[in-house]
Amino acid sequence: MTAFRTIEGGITAPFGYRAAGVACGIKANGKPDLSLVVSDTLASAAGVFTTNLAKAAPVLLSHAHLSESGGLGRAVVINSGCANACTGDDGRDHAAKMAQWTAEQIGCEAAGILVASTGVIGVKLDIEKVHRGIGDATAQLSPQGGSAAARAIMTTDPFPKESAVEVDAHGRSFRVGGMAKGSGMIEPLMATMLGVVTTDARVAPELLQRALKAAVDDTFNAITVDGECSTNDCVFALANGSSGIELAESDWTLLVDSLKAACEPLAIGIVRGGEGATKLVTVRVSGAASLDDARLTARAIANSLLVKTAIHGGDPNWGRLVAVAGRAGAAFSLERAIVRIGPVTLFADGTPYDERAPLAAAYLEGKEIDVEVDLGTGGSGAARMWPCDLSAEYVRINADYRT
Amino acid sequence: MTAFRTIEGGITAPFGYRAAGVACGIKANGKPDLSLVVSDTLASAAGVFTTNLAKAAPVLLSHAHLSESGGLGRAVVINSGCANACTGDDGRDHAAKMAQWTAEQIGCEAAGILVASTGVIGVKLDIEKVHRGIGDATAQLSPQGGSAAARAIMTTDPFPKESAVEVDAHGRSFRVGGMAKGSGMIEPLMATMLGVVTTDARVAPELLQRALKAAVDDTFNAITVDGECSTNDCVFALANGSSGIELAESDWTLLVDSLKAACEPLAIGIVRGGEGATKLVTVRVSGAASLDDARLTARAIANSLLVKTAIHGGDPNWGRLVAVAGRAGAAFSLERAIVRIGPVTLFADGTPYDERAPLAAAYLEGKEIDVEVDLGTGGSGAARMWPCDLSAEYVRINADYRT
Repeated sequence: MTAFRTIEGGITAPFGYRAAGVACGIKANGKPDLSLVVSDTLASAAGVFTTNLAKAAPVLLSHAHLSESGGLGRAVVINSGCANACTGDDGRDHAAKMAQWTAEQIGCEAAGILVASTGVIGVKLDIEKVHRGIGDATAQLSPQGGSAAARAIMTTDPFPKESAVEVDAHGRSFRVGGMAKGSGMIEPLMATMLGVVTTDARVAPELLQRALKAAVDDTFNAITVDGECSTNDCVFALANGSSGIELAESDWTLLVDSLKAACEPLAIGIVRGGEGATKLVTVRVSGAASLDDARLTARAIANSLLVKTAIHGGDPNWGRLVAVAGRAGAAFSLERAIVRIGPVTLFADGTPYDERAPLAAAYLEGKEIDVEVDLGTGGSGAARMWPCDLSAEYVRINADYRT
Repeated sequence: MTAFRTIEGGITAPFGYRAAGVACGIKANGKPDLSLVVSDTLASAAGVFTTNLAKAAPVLLSHAHLSESGGLGRAVVINSGCANACTGDDGRDHAAKMAQWTAEQIGCEAAGILVASTGVIGVKLDIEKVHRGIGDATAQLSPQGGSAAARAIMTTDPFPKESAVEVDAHGRSFRVGGMAKGSGMIEPLMATMLGVVTTDARVAPELLQRALKAAVDDTFNAITVDGECSTNDCVFALANGSSGIELAESDWTLLVDSLKAACEPLAIGIVRGGEGATKLVTVRVSGAASLDDARLTARAIANSLLVKTAIHGGDPNWGRLVAVAGRAGAAFSLERAIVRIGPVTLFADGTPYDERAPLAAAYLEGKEIDVEVDLGTGGSGAARMWPCDLSAEYVRINADYRT
């Protein structure tokens, strides 16, 4: 087993990165709203983007930059407070300017800059404020700046989300760091999650891209607060090789596991900070005919209002789990399915064990809840999702008239 | 244009039907819980069943009976208060007994009986009570019994749902009547919607089956309270020809429209009586590349927590409609999409019209809300869904511990 040591810090924990977070006035409350992450040297760069067809301008630009640069980059610039989404030609121009100005400040090609925005949809970016912010952030870049950068990407997140791990490989060690902002969409119209992962391992661009996608599928793509997918979601990775360690195709498992080790606490942090969330839930699906079937069912359970409200209310309502598993679109055998809430089996062999409901109800009083459904197909497909519960507070937060 | 005259009554409004609703003690509160609908003569019979793979025993039995009988039947027997779902071999035996006893009472083959159950999942049916109920209901069968039958299928529905129309055809007229119970899942674990439609037109079994499916797709399958699909959902149709009018393939449009005229008010009634619902919403999707794309997007919007909470709170949050349309999986052009809330266009040509938000907010104070998204593909695909809003009351209802 590889040792992943959790260490202090975030995106500047790996060597050869500097970062800053500044307030440039996009947020009316004066909180930090511009974040800059710079690799000292040209790094491999990768990105995973929202599948939403209403993509925000910075998403389209960053995707194009990764293609133009052949997966090489120097920096990530992110503003919060305004999503620059649904903003037409001006939006595209503003995203391009953010990249151009950042490139000029640090001395590289514009295609070496990844751009992200998060905040209110349909509002134009005040690009002059962003201009000043990029200058200020550049002046403040520091190897200790990761925490400031993590704060400057928050919108209404209840807490910043950072992680870092150190990993042994080839007789030496390398580091992976990350930051993310989540779905605390307390102000409606927020465009939701962003993540940045840095590593001082050297990884070829194409390999980094595949590894990032694999790591995101099991972490950021395995969480859900409300089943929505925003116009701005993206996760970026930079790998600059400062550790002197190169990870190649033969290190695939180590590479993906290292990225996952940094991404998983960030992803879980997003769920913990989800709107109105009071419980972190782990949904496990096993006995599926395929991995796709397992993921499909885990997602359906994780997004089921009836499951999420039952967990919120401490109701060991196994029938809802059966009903969702049955409708998820995956192969399912009612006669062989098994449903567990925590350690308590409530349905198996087609038979309910309702006498155990009080045990399960006691378990549901906790803040971290496991539920598991074996689909009964005899297959080995298994998947995990992390949703939160659904509270009346979620409805209150999202029903408030935004003006 | 064909005239559909709304008339009084429900399933016994068409000629040649008798019905009854009695209390046989399944519901602890003594309310009616056994419903019987009988055609005086052998009728064409059809059914549309839940796609959930965790099908309840009566769903499996009724499906088999339609196949055995070649789409002919005499009666529908329904109990409420117990879903007879997830009940194993006993459940299958109990459903078969319900059919057998009903068949003996009215004098026909068991395969001529359609059976449904609605209520709590995972609890065994008290079959002796059902036995007595079938006897009592048979004794009370009456051409005026439709209303009693509609009440006896309710679980926690806030009101019974009946409809009837009279339709001119071939120089005479025929009638279609219906009853349904809905998703008032105030007691969790309820297994959800049922509908019965009767007509005194003569319709061949295979034609009736196709027409029922078409009518259900645009009515019962176009509503959503919380995106869930139960283990017991089904809609039955009987056509006994008592009016002397025969509808053939050449009357397809008239037949489907007549069934829809009876089903639509029942479907909308289910939404109005949805858990915690305060507003009836009509979601229209147009400009889709295909009918499937339109339905996919309409369903995604109708089930979006962010859209449903925004409408609940009176927030004219067009960005949420754009974001859901973009992620729905259908072809979508952000630059040509149009979003309307009521009569107010809030986004078009890639440009927000936020200055119109107060007009839309005033519109949202109403109880019947239209929202429309043109997907901007230039296609002619269009679809409609009827969801309700999502209130904190929904969460309270479904989070309450059931024991």
